[in-house]
Amino acid sequence: MTMLEETIAAIRPADPAAVAEARAHQDRLTKPRGALGVLEDVAVRLAGAAAVSPPPLPVPAALAIFAADHGVHARGVTPWPQEVTPQMVGNFLAGGAVANAFAAQVGASVTVVDVGVAADLDPAPGLTISKVAYGTADLSRGPAMTPEQVIAALEAGMATARDLVEGGARCLITGDMGIANTTASAALICAFTGHDAAAVTGRGTGVDDETLARKIEVVREALRANGLERERGGTSGTSALSGMSALETLAAVGGLEHAAIAGFVLAGAALRVPVILDGVIAGAAALAAAALAPDVADHCVAGHRSAEPGHAVALDHLGLRPLVELELRLGEGTGGLLAHPLVCAAVRVMHEVATFDSAGVTDKEA
Amino acid sequence: MTMLEETIAAIRPADPAAVAEARAHQDRLTKPRGALGVLEDVAVRLAGAAAVSPPPLPVPAALAIFAADHGVHARGVTPWPQEVTPQMVGNFLAGGAVANAFAAQVGASVTVVDVGVAADLDPAPGLTISKVAYGTADLSRGPAMTPEQVIAALEAGMATARDLVEGGARCLITGDMGIANTTASAALICAFTGHDAAAVTGRGTGVDDETLARKIEVVREALRANGLERERGGTSGTSALSGMSALETLAAVGGLEHAAIAGFVLAGAALRVPVILDGVIAGAAALAAAALAPDVADHCVAGHRSAEPGHAVALDHLGLRPLVELELRLGEGTGGLLAHPLVCAAVRVMHEVATFDSAGVTDKEA
Repeated sequence: MTMLEETIAAIRPADPAAVAEARAHQDRLTKPRGALGVLEDVAVRLAGAAAVSPPPLPVPAALAIFAADHGVHARGVTPWPQEVTPQMVGNFLAGGAVANAFAAQVGASVTVVDVGVAADLDPAPGLTISKVAYGTADLSRGPAMTPEQVIAALEAGMATARDLVEGGARCLITGDMGIANTTASAALICAFTGHDAAAVTGRGTGVDDETLARKIEVVREALRANGLERERGGTSGTSALSGMSALETLAAVGGLEHAAIAGFVLAGAALRVPVILDGVIAGAAALAAAALAPDVADHCVAGHRSAEPGHAVALDHLGLRPLVELELRLGEGTGGLLAHPLVCAAVRVMHEVATFDSAGVTDKEA
Repeated sequence: MTMLEETIAAIRPADPAAVAEARAHQDRLTKPRGALGVLEDVAVRLAGAAAVSPPPLPVPAALAIFAADHGVHARGVTPWPQEVTPQMVGNFLAGGAVANAFAAQVGASVTVVDVGVAADLDPAPGLTISKVAYGTADLSRGPAMTPEQVIAALEAGMATARDLVEGGARCLITGDMGIANTTASAALICAFTGHDAAAVTGRGTGVDDETLARKIEVVREALRANGLERERGGTSGTSALSGMSALETLAAVGGLEHAAIAGFVLAGAALRVPVILDGVIAGAAALAAAALAPDVADHCVAGHRSAEPGHAVALDHLGLRPLVELELRLGEGTGGLLAHPLVCAAVRVMHEVATFDSAGVTDKEA
C-alpha cells in the first residue's frame, strides 16, 4: 500500500462507547446538564476520536504552516505580490508574525513547511523544505497539479503530522501561507459542495469590488477548464461529485498547501491525535480529506469561522461547528491557535471537575 | 466623599490619543488591515482604557466569584434548592468546579466573596466573608435590598477589586454564584433597558416551560411592586428610567452579588485595570455600573454571550460585543475566563508582531 492508502486505512470513526461514557460523565459533573453548551460537545467529540473517556489533554499543541504559491496569482485575484509568500515565511521563522504571537500565547510550537513556494528558501531552524514545485500551474487554464505532485504534497503533510506526533505533539493545528490561496479554496469548495462560485468566493485578505468580480469569474473558469461544472437541480446546488475522484479534484483546483493540509489532517486522524482546523484554506483541504476518508471529520475541531463566505459552507458540509467567530481573515493558523485554549478547557472539565456525589452538592429537583 | 463617589470620580473615558495610536499601529503590522477582526477592536479598546498604546498585557488575571442568595427563590423560579449556593462555594474552595478548571487553564487566581449567602460559611483560604445579609428580600414584594445594604455590597465589590489589583492582578474577571440570580438579572435588565420581561427572562440553568412562565410573571410583579414599570412609546420599549436612580433600581430588584459586581467593575475602571464580564449576571450588574458612571463601559470587555436572552439585550445596551458565543449557561465566571486568552492574544499582537518595515514584507498594492 502507498503511504496515503495506509493512512486512510488506519482512520477509525468516533468510538461509540467512549462517546456514550463521555456524555454520561458530563451529566454527573457539578454543573447543570448541558450548561457548557458547545464545549460539552467538543469534549465528547475528542473522547470519541481518542476512543477513551475522558480524552487526553490536547497538549502540547503543534502548529504547522504549509507555504506554497499559486499559478492563478497571474490572473490578478489579489493585490498582494507573490513575493509576500517567502517574505512571510521569513517573518514566521523570525517570530514576527501574528501566528507566532498567538502560538506563544497558547504554548504551541511553530513549524513551517515549504511545499511549493515559488522561490528557493534558505534552510533555517523551524523550516522543513519539502518543495514539490515552484507553485502550482494556473488552475483557471487546467489542472493546478499533476497526479504526482498532489501525492507528493499529501505525503509532505502526512510526514509533518507524523514527525510532530513522534516529537510529542498531542494536538495538531493547521496553518497556511500562500498568496492567492483563497481563490483555490473557493474552487475546491465549489467542486466538493456544489455551491456556486459567487456564494463561496470572498474578499480574502481584502480585495476591492472589481477584483472580487474577477476572482469569481476565475473560479468559474477553473471549474469549466477542469470539467468540474455540474448540473444543478433546484436551488440548493449540492449535487454530488460527478465522475471525478477526490484526488483528481484536489489536483485540478487545489494548491500544494491544500494537499499538504489534507495529508496532515488524514495522518492526525490515523494517529488519533485531534486536529484543530484553521480557516477557509483548512476547510477546503478538509473537504478533500473527508472525500478521501469520511471518518476523518470525527477527528477534527473547527477552530474558527473566518469572514470568507466559503468557510461557513465548508464547515456546514463537514458537519463542524466553529468555536471562535471573530471575523478573522488572516490564515497562518491564527484561528486554530485561538481555539486551542477553548478545546483544552473543554477537556480539562472532564478530568478536574467534581461530580455531584463527590462534592456533596445537591442535584436539582427532578 | 464616600468610597463609591471617589471611585466614580476616578473613572475616565477611553483616551482618544491612545485609541488613535493603537489603531495606527495595527495598520503597520504584518497582516492585512483589519484581518484580526474583533480582536483588533479589543486591543484598541484596552489601549484606550489604559491610556497607553500598546496597552499592558492583561496578566495575571484574577477571578472574583461573588456569592449571595435571593429572597425570590421562595417563589419557585428555579428547580435548584438554595443550599446549592453554599455547597458550590465549598466546591470552588476545594477546586472542584468548572470555574476552577477554566481558571487553571488560563492561569487566573480564584477568590470567592460571600456578600450574602443565606448560611454561615466557615473561614477558608480563598474565601472573603463580606456578608451584607443572609440573602435579599423577595424582590417581587418590594425592594430586595435596603439603601444601606446596596452600598455595603457595592463597597465589598470595590474592596475586592482594589485588593486584587494591589496583589498584582492586571485583569479582573467577574464571577457569580447565587441560586435564582437569573431572575434578579432579568428584572434589572428590564428596569435599565425598558425591555419586556418576556423578552429578557430565560431558562437560567434549565427550567421547564411552567417554571419559565412563573419566572416571567415574577419579574413583572417585581417591576410593579417597585414602581419600575414604565410607559412605552412604540415598540422599542427603550425609554429612559423614569425617576428612580440607578442605586434605587439596583436595590429594588438586584441581588447582593449584582451590587458587588457593579462595585468590582467600577473599581477596576477607576484603577484602569480592564474587567472581563462573564454572563447575564455580570451584564445586568454592568448596566447598573454604567448607569452610575457611563464611562465604565470603556474599561469592560464582554467575555461571552450566554444562552440567556437578557444577556444579548444587556450587551447591546452597553455597546459591547461578546468574544465567545458557545451557548454557555453556567455563570461562575466561566465565560469570562474562556475569553481571557483571546484578550491576551489581541494585546500580544500589539507587543510582538513585526511591522511591514521591520520585517521587510511588501505591503499590498494600493
